[in-house]
Amino acid sequence: MKALSVLRLLPLVALLTAWLPTAALAEGEAAVVAGADAMYTVNNTWMLVATFLVFIMHLGFASLEAGLTRAKNTVNILFKNTAIISIGLLTYAVVGFNLMYPGDFSLGGWFGFGGFGIGVSPEDMMVAGDDGVGIYTYWTDFIFQAMFAATAATIVSGAVAERIKLHSFLIFSTIYVALVYPWVGSWKWGGGWLDEMGFYDFAGSTLVHSVGGWAALVGVSLLGPRLGKYVSGGIKPILGHNMPLATIGVFLLWLGWFGFNGGSVLSADPELVSFVFVTTSLAAAAGVIGAMTISWIIQKKPDLSMALNGALAGLVGITAGADVVSVMSAVIIGLLAGFLVVASVMVLDRCKLDDPVGAISVHLVCGIWGTLAVGIFSAEHSFVTQLIGVAAYGVTCFIAAMVLFLVVKAIFGLRVDEKEEMIGLDLGEHGMEAYSGFEIHNS
Amino acid sequence: MKALSVLRLLPLVALLTAWLPTAALAEGEAAVVAGADAMYTVNNTWMLVATFLVFIMHLGFASLEAGLTRAKNTVNILFKNTAIISIGLLTYAVVGFNLMYPGDFSLGGWFGFGGFGIGVSPEDMMVAGDDGVGIYTYWTDFIFQAMFAATAATIVSGAVAERIKLHSFLIFSTIYVALVYPWVGSWKWGGGWLDEMGFYDFAGSTLVHSVGGWAALVGVSLLGPRLGKYVSGGIKPILGHNMPLATIGVFLLWLGWFGFNGGSVLSADPELVSFVFVTTSLAAAAGVIGAMTISWIIQKKPDLSMALNGALAGLVGITAGADVVSVMSAVIIGLLAGFLVVASVMVLDRCKLDDPVGAISVHLVCGIWGTLAVGIFSAEHSFVTQLIGVAAYGVTCFIAAMVLFLVVKAIFGLRVDEKEEMIGLDLGEHGMEAYSGFEIHNS
Amino acid sequence: MKALSVLRLLPLVALLTAWLPTAALAEGEAAVVAGADAMYTVNNTWMLVATFLVFIMHLGFASLEAGLTRAKNTVNILFKNTAIISIGLLTYAVVGFNLMYPGDFSLGGWFGFGGFGIGVSPEDMMVAGDDGVGIYTYWTDFIFQAMFAATAATIVSGAVAERIKLHSFLIFSTIYVALVYPWVGSWKWGGGWLDEMGFYDFAGSTLVHSVGGWAALVGVSLLGPRLGKYVSGGIKPILGHNMPLATIGVFLLWLGWFGFNGGSVLSADPELVSFVFVTTSLAAAAGVIGAMTISWIIQKKPDLSMALNGALAGLVGITAGADVVSVMSAVIIGLLAGFLVVASVMVLDRCKLDDPVGAISVHLVCGIWGTLAVGIFSAEHSFVTQLIGVAAYGVTCFIAAMVLFLVVKAIFGLRVDEKEEMIGLDLGEHGMEAYSGFEIHNS
Repeated sequence: MKALSVLRLLPLVALLTAWLPTAALAEGEAAVVAGADAMYTVNNTWMLVATFLVFIMHLGFASLEAGLTRAKNTVNILFKNTAIISIGLLTYAVVGFNLMYPGDFSLGGWFGFGGFGIGVSPEDMMVAGDDGVGIYTYWTDFIFQAMFAATAATIVSGAVAERIKLHSFLIFSTIYVALVYPWVGSWKWGGGWLDEMGFYDFAGSTLVHSVGGWAALVGVSLLGPRLGKYVSGGIKPILGHNMPLATIGVFLLWLGWFGFNGGSVLSADPELVSFVFVTTSLAAAAGVIGAMTISWIIQKKPDLSMALNGALAGLVGITAGADVVSVMSAVIIGLLAGFLVVASVMVLDRCKLDDPVGAISVHLVCGIWGTLAVGIFSAEHSFVTQLIGVAAYGVTCFIAAMVLFLVVKAIFGLRVDEKEEMIGLDLGEHGMEAYSGFEIHNS
Repeated sequence: MKALSVLRLLPLVALLTAWLPTAALAEGEAAVVAGADAMYTVNNTWMLVATFLVFIMHLGFASLEAGLTRAKNTVNILFKNTAIISIGLLTYAVVGFNLMYPGDFSLGGWFGFGGFGIGVSPEDMMVAGDDGVGIYTYWTDFIFQAMFAATAATIVSGAVAERIKLHSFLIFSTIYVALVYPWVGSWKWGGGWLDEMGFYDFAGSTLVHSVGGWAALVGVSLLGPRLGKYVSGGIKPILGHNMPLATIGVFLLWLGWFGFNGGSVLSADPELVSFVFVTTSLAAAAGVIGAMTISWIIQKKPDLSMALNGALAGLVGITAGADVVSVMSAVIIGLLAGFLVVASVMVLDRCKLDDPVGAISVHLVCGIWGTLAVGIFSAEHSFVTQLIGVAAYGVTCFIAAMVLFLVVKAIFGLRVDEKEEMIGLDLGEHGMEAYSGFEIHNS
Repeated sequence: MKALSVLRLLPLVALLTAWLPTAALAEGEAAVVAGADAMYTVNNTWMLVATFLVFIMHLGFASLEAGLTRAKNTVNILFKNTAIISIGLLTYAVVGFNLMYPGDFSLGGWFGFGGFGIGVSPEDMMVAGDDGVGIYTYWTDFIFQAMFAATAATIVSGAVAERIKLHSFLIFSTIYVALVYPWVGSWKWGGGWLDEMGFYDFAGSTLVHSVGGWAALVGVSLLGPRLGKYVSGGIKPILGHNMPLATIGVFLLWLGWFGFNGGSVLSADPELVSFVFVTTSLAAAAGVIGAMTISWIIQKKPDLSMALNGALAGLVGITAGADVVSVMSAVIIGLLAGFLVVASVMVLDRCKLDDPVGAISVHLVCGIWGTLAVGIFSAEHSFVTQLIGVAAYGVTCFIAAMVLFLVVKAIFGLRVDEKEEMIGLDLGEHGMEAYSGFEIHNS
């Protein structure tokens, strides 16, 4: 501010020298920088908040899966979820991030790889938007995307629960999350061929949820149903052992979705992020109402599991288009997702595809629905392109998961033996119980 | 920055032309805008953080209510809470928001309605403060308030638990949250008659908590106590079935309160938000100490339920004045709220008002206390005006809840039959158990 | 903007008067302020987010401790954790904050006290960085640090669980958190002698975790093992009663650590905070992998408790150097912490030091490891100085905890009687059960 007092004393002198306007402008420039710095900081801060929200989804998945299955397999499920987030973060650092965002593609828009590991020199640290204003750091970019990566594998975990061998599952999901998820993800979010074609998937109805969902479908097909699930032509419901835990899971997932969708704006843009909060919340609410109503009508009883899955159905459904559909469309998308999830659960049971937590119905069926809904409810997006995207991910992930699961099956086997399945994987695989001291009669 | 180099080369020419000062100012102006843009973004981001914090309170309520009641009614409680947040969000979008913030009142400051549905044209998107700096978007305004709305109904849920018919409760709370809550809310937060009178309720000791509390009181009175609660002149404690779940509930509520109170600043103002964090935290802590001490003295045993309700008592108590009382006053308000909640629980039991989770004591009694405390501890607010506000909400909500409950009772009945109450609402209403496989002996 | 139109009309006149450059600069200056205001606001907002994240760690501790111990002591553990956070917040307001950040030291860098209570005049409200830009308010500074304070006492809680008298524990931890934690904390974070010596502890591997860990070690030594733990030369595992609860605990602690470490940047600096997110996450993940692998090899079974403690080990390990070690170093630190925690649990059991939740192994052993790791993996820090710091805290905290525990033991006794330990502290101390209605056979 010293320049200022000089100016006050000697305005005319100042006007005749070269440095005045420069100083005035430099001052203005500094101010511009200060505003942009603050914008960079708030953008980055929001993305870190979104990051920890996506992180907590992993506790949501763990709780939901454990709650909807039997007490005798709880430790196994918790172990898998603790391991997956850890494996997912580390593999994403080693290889996933640079596969998903390769920079350049070496095979058209189909495949690229930016090298092993993460780390940059300071001058590359800030990632800026088109206007040059920083939106986040390189590190934020990595950790936000890393939190996403592991969700795909976690989705599989619920579908194959209560009968898959622990190490077989861990090997499958390590490779799926390290290689398949980022590779197909690059097609859209890495700027690959589907991105160039105009395919739209805002936060991952297809790229995350259906990618996990397809692997879940393959896993369930190969494993077969749990013992006693389909007997003499009938369907025997196998009840979850802890509904408060399942409810905690769904609420934490809903919470995390504010980061999953809200962070996918990739900045703290006030209008976009807040709009995404609204569409996300209302779609989830409509999903609950949809699933609750239809299941109440069909089963004559209000079904908590269905209401909970309805919330997730609405959330998965809105994920592809949360920023490009209207509020009313979001409600319709969520409501239909709520109907769909109930129908899908019933159809899968008819097909003897035993998915203990409804992961295929929630993540695959509603993931497809949400992606197609963008082509229906947003005038700027083509239904056909959306369909091509859905099909491309479907074919690729189905084949990749099938090959991977078959290789793992050939080497290690997939399913625990009958005796272990009866006593539960907690004692069988881990030698411990989830609820030591409690009197529990296992079905 | 091109202008800059020109200036360096030709300062004198520049001084003699009209565009120099304009350019210099325009540069400065751009800088001002950039700073204001960043401020708008951080304000809005904080409000969205507050929004997801208030969202998680619904999981807090669900956990607390389920934990403090019996295992046989757990599914029912979880179902109600999942349904209420969903219904609350949707009805607030359809009618609540425009009832609560009508813009203009058609009946003095008593009633106004801005029309059905939400949605605006882009030019109305930014909501700015008095200085013209944006504080949040229209969408943020909606979704933050929408998260609040459902809490009022959730409060009722705990008080009427273990004996109310599911559909009767859902119908009551849908109407209460869609119409009554926003209508009476408009009197203060919508700029209505109580606001003009100088009534103060920062974040809703009265507007949210007592509004729910009055309906809880009416519901409990109409339903009568649970079977076996008051027998042969004595009070038989009916214990909660899952204290870790109740504790999770209280900590999540406390967490959510940082958004409930912190977001009620309606901007990210550093001094106000951080001050509110301090008063909120210390009042909650003092509430724990107050309830813990007094119950330890009276019952000779340190009571976990009372300590937990003490935290909520302190939080409800500080909600009305978190930004206008001193730190020391916040501690006193919380401490007294802790005493009050214990006394109230005992008095209600004497009156045979059976409130399984203490919702009336926490939300109504401490809501009134907190509102009156503003008139005591803040020199700028009148005790009499605070009392008028409390009375106005009391009379209106009591009558509204009474009429609504009586109409619902006349049409659908309120209470499940005795047999269903004995076997529990989980089997009775939902045909499922919360803890399948566990050996549980119901009281 | 009025000045602007004048300028447009009368540029030459303006140039010849004294106020033009002043106005131009003032405009620029206002712009600088606007940017700085926004930066202050986002810095402060991030610190408040970090504050609520650290708050939720207390729920994490409560859940983890309750989950890893027996059902008959659950209410007692939940009560302790609810009480400690409340006591911690209040004592930190009364005395702790001004002991830890005394401003001036009266005894060299060894002891200082800024007076009782908190509260400032408005002109002191903003705490600014070296560049004059605000980073948080006085209130934020207090509440963020207050949330930290109680964690030290909570760490002790888990180690002494299932056998310590409630009031003895509360008296010990009140004094420890009110006086010892802030006093020794002042040596580094308050600018005391260890800070001047160049000792480095970013977020508290030593100042928080080992301070709690030393007291845990003393408590465990004085109390002796739980009945039946070490019988006839063998070690009898006493299993936790609720593994979902323990898992919830660990995930919430991991979540909270984003605030614990991320907030310790003491601003929203994009590069530093995001880098800390990355090192923290990868160290936690590596800790899981380390503990999982080593325990799988040794015990032949994948152990969920070890995997969970591995996450915490990695988190405690990275806490001292999260901002100064490389990503690869963070992974190595976490991995070794995962090995260490498993080894330490086994060694402690050999020494008949019975720590039900592994608190000493996680917080003390990995706290020391993390502090020394700064001297190994960061070229700018001295291993010897780190060792001096570790020793200084070790000697002081060990002696302080020993004296305190012995005084409490002499006056009130430390351990519940044998009968109470058998029936459990829930019935013995609180007269209530955590899981009313459930059939539980206690070991």
